Amino acid sequence: MSLVVVGSVALDTVETPKGRADDAIGGAALYFSLAASFFTPVRMVGVVGADFPRDMLAELARRGVDLAGLEEAAGKTFRWSGRYHEDVNVRDTLHLDLGVFGDFRPKLPDSYRDSKYVFLANIDPVLQASVLDQLKAPGVVGCDTMNHWIAESRPALESLLTRVGMLVVNDEEARLLSGERNVVKAAAKILTMGPTSVLIKRGEYGVIQFAGDSVFAVPAYPLEDVTDPTGAGDCFAGGVMGELARSGDMSPRGLRRAIVYGSVMGSFVVEDFGPRRLLRLTREEVDARFRQFVSLTDCGGV
Amino acid sequence: MSLVVVGSVALDTVETPKGRADDAIGGAALYFSLAASFFTPVRMVGVVGADFPRDMLAELARRGVDLAGLEEAAGKTFRWSGRYHEDVNVRDTLHLDLGVFGDFRPKLPDSYRDSKYVFLANIDPVLQASVLDQLKAPGVVGCDTMNHWIAESRPALESLLTRVGMLVVNDEEARLLSGERNVVKAAAKILTMGPTSVLIKRGEYGVIQFAGDSVFAVPAYPLEDVTDPTGAGDCFAGGVMGELARSGDMSPRGLRRAIVYGSVMGSFVVEDFGPRRLLRLTREEVDARFRQFVSLTDCGGV
Repeated sequence: MSLVVVGSVALDTVETPKGRADDAIGGAALYFSLAASFFTPVRMVGVVGADFPRDMLAELARRGVDLAGLEEAAGKTFRWSGRYHEDVNVRDTLHLDLGVFGDFRPKLPDSYRDSKYVFLANIDPVLQASVLDQLKAPGVVGCDTMNHWIAESRPALESLLTRVGMLVVNDEEARLLSGERNVVKAAAKILTMGPTSVLIKRGEYGVIQFAGDSVFAVPAYPLEDVTDPTGAGDCFAGGVMGELARSGDMSPRGLRRAIVYGSVMGSFVVEDFGPRRLLRLTREEVDARFRQFVSLTDCGGV
Repeated sequence: MSLVVVGSVALDTVETPKGRADDAIGGAALYFSLAASFFTPVRMVGVVGADFPRDMLAELARRGVDLAGLEEAAGKTFRWSGRYHEDVNVRDTLHLDLGVFGDFRPKLPDSYRDSKYVFLANIDPVLQASVLDQLKAPGVVGCDTMNHWIAESRPALESLLTRVGMLVVNDEEARLLSGERNVVKAAAKILTMGPTSVLIKRGEYGVIQFAGDSVFAVPAYPLEDVTDPTGAGDCFAGGVMGELARSGDMSPRGLRRAIVYGSVMGSFVVEDFGPRRLLRLTREEVDARFRQFVSLTDCGGV
């Protein structure tokens, strides 16, 4: 089924204890699309400047990413540079230049308006809502956000959440949004705000999903080397939504399998700088790691 | 099969954000024994002073804990008092009085010497080794330790580890012992030091086991309220070793199921102060939560 994503497209410069990468293509919508493209065609909504590498756009198109909704504006692409610490859960932003992303107003081409699956990556909740307004009949709505919007745009975010099915946030965002420190209480509170499921990302400890009375936890895949954590959360979301759009299976089991596929995609992207690992990843590797994830928690059942 | 544990028996005074408890019975050997007693009889080796409540000893005996190896010395029982923060992963020790535990030299009664399953709770590695020396033919040897011994008694600890099958440590201890920050590398290093499996406890994120090429992760059970984390790690070990001694199943699957039972026991004890929750726990509740743990990670297989 048709999947659309809206969010940032960027050029990232990253330093980690393993080295550095300059002007790597990035941004939430790009990572999401790359990951989701392993499962289903993706329609991308975003904006780039004249400096965005054209060969990378061709590469995305080759992978089934529809770029009709990618605006090419006069000016510079959103640039972010950051440094990860030895503890890769901690990062500093060194430099941020919104460029053409500062004036981004998502505009969906007519060809996108029938999309049933939609992911609203982390942007202003007012803009996220405007994307939903442009869709004829969105079915499965996933959404990310961040502390900035939770603190500064709460009314718009709360209004948006009544239209969201699946919220994807990290521990800290879940706490800030709910006012609850305990993850179970935080999730219960968020589920009263609109979403029917909330996926809480816990970095190197994995993901936990709350949906109704059901709780599902996926430990992170234990990796020997994390080269660059950039994009892990977006690739997770891309794997989840991509697999859901592919299977159309919104049953508890279908959701759980999609969350494992999301975890698989997040585990791969951190193995190299920027999107490099995804660019050389095969579908066979995805399925092999899916089986490893299943084995990771397999105790033979009850 | 016969299971013996050696370690501290204490009287704990604990403050947590949920309240406080004074002079609760505690100590690693006691928590271990209480948890293991749900699966198999346990032989306890430790020391208490004249101030240890006799009715609690009777309660332990009633639960199948053999106290022939519990020395009753003139003097005071080991006392610990501590305070847990809002983030219950952080605690301060307020007061520590070793009492009769300061001169503890484990002495196994003859009736214990045929024990096949042994757990060396966190004490001086020299004393841990002396327990192994007193056993005729220990089969499955589990061992805990702490930063203090890793830093101050490394030669004795390394010598001991060559005789240990299963090491149970937390994240930080695994890092200090191995000199590796990454958990996969830390585990690989530890597996070269003697143990055939290492279980790394990650507090509210659960447990991860490395054994040969096999990795097994159990997320922590998501609890709404953690009243008092004291004893969680010891109850985890008690559940693991208790179930192994009961089943005699040291296959990968048998080990994994024992680790889930350990996680079950750890998840219960934190629900109330000291050992209170365990003292009113039923075997039916244990099995019900085991099924909940299985469901927590069940994505329907490959």
